[in-house]
Amino acid sequence: MKPRVLIIMGSDTDLPVMEEAAKVLRRFDIPCIMTVASAHRTPERTLKLIKNAEKSRIQVIIAGAGMAAHLPGVVASHTIIPVIGVPLDASPLGGMDALLSMVQMPPGIPVATVAVGKAGAKNAGLLAAQIMAGNDPALARKILDYRKEMTTEVEEKAAKIERKN
Amino acid sequence: MKPRVLIIMGSDTDLPVMEEAAKVLRRFDIPCIMTVASAHRTPERTLKLIKNAEKSRIQVIIAGAGMAAHLPGVVASHTIIPVIGVPLDASPLGGMDALLSMVQMPPGIPVATVAVGKAGAKNAGLLAAQIMAGNDPALARKILDYRKEMTTEVEEKAAKIERKN
Amino acid sequence: MKPRVLIIMGSDTDLPVMEEAAKVLRRFDIPCIMTVASAHRTPERTLKLIKNAEKSRIQVIIAGAGMAAHLPGVVASHTIIPVIGVPLDASPLGGMDALLSMVQMPPGIPVATVAVGKAGAKNAGLLAAQIMAGNDPALARKILDYRKEMTTEVEEKAAKIERKN
Amino acid sequence: MKPRVLIIMGSDTDLPVMEEAAKVLRRFDIPCIMTVASAHRTPERTLKLIKNAEKSRIQVIIAGAGMAAHLPGVVASHTIIPVIGVPLDASPLGGMDALLSMVQMPPGIPVATVAVGKAGAKNAGLLAAQIMAGNDPALARKILDYRKEMTTEVEEKAAKIERKN
Amino acid sequence: MKPRVLIIMGSDTDLPVMEEAAKVLRRFDIPCIMTVASAHRTPERTLKLIKNAEKSRIQVIIAGAGMAAHLPGVVASHTIIPVIGVPLDASPLGGMDALLSMVQMPPGIPVATVAVGKAGAKNAGLLAAQIMAGNDPALARKILDYRKEMTTEVEEKAAKIERKN
Amino acid sequence: MKPRVLIIMGSDTDLPVMEEAAKVLRRFDIPCIMTVASAHRTPERTLKLIKNAEKSRIQVIIAGAGMAAHLPGVVASHTIIPVIGVPLDASPLGGMDALLSMVQMPPGIPVATVAVGKAGAKNAGLLAAQIMAGNDPALARKILDYRKEMTTEVEEKAAKIERKN
Amino acid sequence: MKPRVLIIMGSDTDLPVMEEAAKVLRRFDIPCIMTVASAHRTPERTLKLIKNAEKSRIQVIIAGAGMAAHLPGVVASHTIIPVIGVPLDASPLGGMDALLSMVQMPPGIPVATVAVGKAGAKNAGLLAAQIMAGNDPALARKILDYRKEMTTEVEEKAAKIERKN
Amino acid sequence: MKPRVLIIMGSDTDLPVMEEAAKVLRRFDIPCIMTVASAHRTPERTLKLIKNAEKSRIQVIIAGAGMAAHLPGVVASHTIIPVIGVPLDASPLGGMDALLSMVQMPPGIPVATVAVGKAGAKNAGLLAAQIMAGNDPALARKILDYRKEMTTEVEEKAAKIERKN
Repeated sequence: MKPRVLIIMGSDTDLPVMEEAAKVLRRFDIPCIMTVASAHRTPERTLKLIKNAEKSRIQVIIAGAGMAAHLPGVVASHTIIPVIGVPLDASPLGGMDALLSMVQMPPGIPVATVAVGKAGAKNAGLLAAQIMAGNDPALARKILDYRKEMTTEVEEKAAKIERKN
Repeated sequence: MKPRVLIIMGSDTDLPVMEEAAKVLRRFDIPCIMTVASAHRTPERTLKLIKNAEKSRIQVIIAGAGMAAHLPGVVASHTIIPVIGVPLDASPLGGMDALLSMVQMPPGIPVATVAVGKAGAKNAGLLAAQIMAGNDPALARKILDYRKEMTTEVEEKAAKIERKN
Repeated sequence: MKPRVLIIMGSDTDLPVMEEAAKVLRRFDIPCIMTVASAHRTPERTLKLIKNAEKSRIQVIIAGAGMAAHLPGVVASHTIIPVIGVPLDASPLGGMDALLSMVQMPPGIPVATVAVGKAGAKNAGLLAAQIMAGNDPALARKILDYRKEMTTEVEEKAAKIERKN
Repeated sequence: MKPRVLIIMGSDTDLPVMEEAAKVLRRFDIPCIMTVASAHRTPERTLKLIKNAEKSRIQVIIAGAGMAAHLPGVVASHTIIPVIGVPLDASPLGGMDALLSMVQMPPGIPVATVAVGKAGAKNAGLLAAQIMAGNDPALARKILDYRKEMTTEVEEKAAKIERKN
Repeated sequence: MKPRVLIIMGSDTDLPVMEEAAKVLRRFDIPCIMTVASAHRTPERTLKLIKNAEKSRIQVIIAGAGMAAHLPGVVASHTIIPVIGVPLDASPLGGMDALLSMVQMPPGIPVATVAVGKAGAKNAGLLAAQIMAGNDPALARKILDYRKEMTTEVEEKAAKIERKN
Repeated sequence: MKPRVLIIMGSDTDLPVMEEAAKVLRRFDIPCIMTVASAHRTPERTLKLIKNAEKSRIQVIIAGAGMAAHLPGVVASHTIIPVIGVPLDASPLGGMDALLSMVQMPPGIPVATVAVGKAGAKNAGLLAAQIMAGNDPALARKILDYRKEMTTEVEEKAAKIERKN
Repeated sequence: MKPRVLIIMGSDTDLPVMEEAAKVLRRFDIPCIMTVASAHRTPERTLKLIKNAEKSRIQVIIAGAGMAAHLPGVVASHTIIPVIGVPLDASPLGGMDALLSMVQMPPGIPVATVAVGKAGAKNAGLLAAQIMAGNDPALARKILDYRKEMTTEVEEKAAKIERKN
Repeated sequence: MKPRVLIIMGSDTDLPVMEEAAKVLRRFDIPCIMTVASAHRTPERTLKLIKNAEKSRIQVIIAGAGMAAHLPGVVASHTIIPVIGVPLDASPLGGMDALLSMVQMPPGIPVATVAVGKAGAKNAGLLAAQIMAGNDPALARKILDYRKEMTTEVEEKAAKIERKN
């Protein structure tokens, strides 16, 4: 099946975190590709990935990186496919460096930034799904179901804790 | 013409900043509505706006707020329309409070966060346009033209500075 | 016995921290209920809990959450029962995200914010007790006794350390 | 009429900010006294104010201070009357110093901390009112009316902005 | 021998850190007492310790505390004996809370603040010694010797590393 | 009269802030010298000033600097005269850079750090006086009088505000 | 004369700050070119500038940018000419965003980062000169003279302040 | 072979981090010396090292330190050899203290600052190599080869992850 989302990470060590995005997409039966590219160490490769994404009609790009995390911004500057940035906690500064390097994109080239780390990676998957659901009623229904399951899950956990009181 | 984007701000004093989002959208001939709603002071009104947005098939919601800026998160928790959050600099903490209140959304409900203040508001408009361009080739062309104009503008400014050297 | 305090947490994983609030309340024989609700994943459940709290004449609500911690603010926007917010350390940003998401509530809807983590949860229990003690002289006496015990405890520890000198 | 709330500020230059708390209280016909006391420069005076507050059955104490803002914590350590802390922006560090000096109170002695500056001072007044409303149904009604007025105010502002669209 | 320095810590769990101050003082044969007192939980005890310190002609007071670390400021407000503050890392905020609660003392009552944690505790002992050395040439000589030893120690470590090159 | 305190600042533009230290010292009739020296631009001059200070039996050195504020640390590394550091707000980072560059001195060489800016400069003067008062009962009395005046001043301001209530 | 240093800034509004770098270079008779290029809005132009710099044997590149300041990192990823990054204060976050976006470059591609704003721009010019002085004894002498002038300047300012004492 | 780079660290415990710089240099066959010197505990030794470096025609100095990390600034103030500063994470403040103590050098004396910790140490080695490559075409070729290897390495890792998809 043709992939609809491209997930790029700055380093292969980011895989355990970025997997969270892929898991969410798989759950919604959204085909995606995951790969590695560094804005700084492999700028040409990054460009080629973007060109391929445009040719194969990728609908959303998710890019995760740590430290001075330029990857999503660099990707966004070469395409108008929406880019979601996931800041990673990869230095002693607790991910604040990656967060500011993504969210503070100057006027002209936006990056849709989510939370630092695993929570952010998961939300990146969800945001990508929500963006594509605008023209995909079946996907929209799946996301609504997912939300209901979250509700049920919270209610079950609540019930357990209430019983213990 | 039917609006495609809803811009909500937490207070009418946020208008000069949030106007930047509307300007970008107008430039791309994307009809939008701008209004005020507070996640905290008018929770019911916020809910009604979301229900109306869903009925009138709004495609993207942009929400700007300052301080403990819950507006985009609260909106996002009631709809699967993609929500873009614009953190505003409305306290002595320089907008860091609004930024963290938006970008650090816990897993399950994403907010696409952009930069603090005017730069962010402008990018929110651009991001909304890019999201809608996925199914609107005419809009995609306009955004590509806009990017070319940015290039030309930078080159003209560069030429002026180079002459002065 | 009818509960007087409602303790809500954003996730069941917050229980070991929020337990500190319940422990303090139990020590003062203040009945309380503990449950889970997420401002974002279960907004309706959150509303229902608040309505029930008002009906059953809950006197104080304690709400703990991490990341973009909207729970106490959302609760506070739907009731005038005093709401105490406990910011939790649930992301690589060390709880600063949760702290600012609570304490920086915009004008109109206050959240009484305490320290990040266990120390805050314990103080939330004490603050709830102090609020209720205004009309409950027996409770006031218990809190004063508790303070004396703290004094004694510090003095005993001091004595031990002084002996070692 | 006997005052029910004591407002203390660390310096007379804090008056324009702390006035916001008094304004809210006056609006609800809650008598209050405002005065100056420094935890550091006038520790004895601070103690005397607390003793007097206890004798005259003050129900809530609001304390505002800047920098290493110990005033609310010192007050709270000498009484079990609930203490609300308002961090003031009085140094080049933007109020972060005062915020952390209040909200991070160690376990045992809570301070109910609100936002930095005027927004916080206003919310301190509202929180004090909400605490007292638990046993004062007339006051509770006034607060509920106030909330409705906030709603109306936001709606009017929204209408203005919507017309301009 | 009559103690010349009083070391107070906010909690007995601070002992392993504050020990560093005592070790330095012992090395210079400066008698000191170590004890526990909390600015908030035992304000009276804190006052009594200060009065005793004045009576027994203590020359420097070292006070260590974490979180909203008021202990050194409260001590300093009741005496003109120089007070050295050691901020402790006792919350998820990494000691930044304790640091700002000490160093940002408002005009009128200074606290001589040193680094967060063990490095600061050690330097507190050295600073106390330097303050007393002004009138104690024998102590001055010991401190100068200590500095020379530090130099030798660094040189030995340097030699080891240089050999490995 | 022989100066007892040396006030060094990193730049002549720091004079309006560092004057606060000199004012306090003059009020206590403590002779002091004020001068400029940069740890980085004039390292030799800095060394010479320290040697002179030791020869002329200066008792305390106050050093103020902004940005990467090494001046007090560099001074402290060349003498055992107690060094008080005043961090100045001289960059867009609000003085946090200067604060951390002073207070976080590594083990071995302490700098007694006070608050950022004017409040800190004033407290540096007071701390210097308190250090010297240990062997100067007349000075001790002056400082105690100063504290009483502060008390009176606060009480007068309090009275004014109370009358306005 | 052939330029030896290329100064790039992200926006023409950065000119008043980046001019400081050019002024220093002119003072040392080092020919330089100044121009504008945005890593995000004009990625191709940025690449072309780098290729030209390599062809014309530019020895050092200085790049200034604000917000998520990727310019120096992007430049550095395409050349092995040393790149100096000047973080600019161009958002409500005080330049902390630009600083972390430059200095936290991940392993493989270094950016030599200097201080935020004008001080940094000036130091970027000096650092460029120092780098080139390694093979240019005449330039080395000019830099040494410049340092002596700085010393004299500080001494003159010191003399003025000492006279006022 | 005559060393071309001097690596100084503030403490022998910094060796595992600073080794990263030496490894990079060795890989490019650039001879270097590694040693320990503390700006504060061994100022004279630091000066002597600089004088020796100048005599032996060292081309770049790399200095790593933690906390109030003055070492690179102090070195830079005594020589015009380019100084690269590596901030180390050596306190509870996560390296932010060392970073600001280096990068915020005031105008006149630049320090080329890189990232906190190991990533920074490695980049310091690379930056030193790039600075020397300006006059050493063989070295330039080695750095270009290194970059190609980085590209290959990323591509191999990408291939592995893509296969797993």
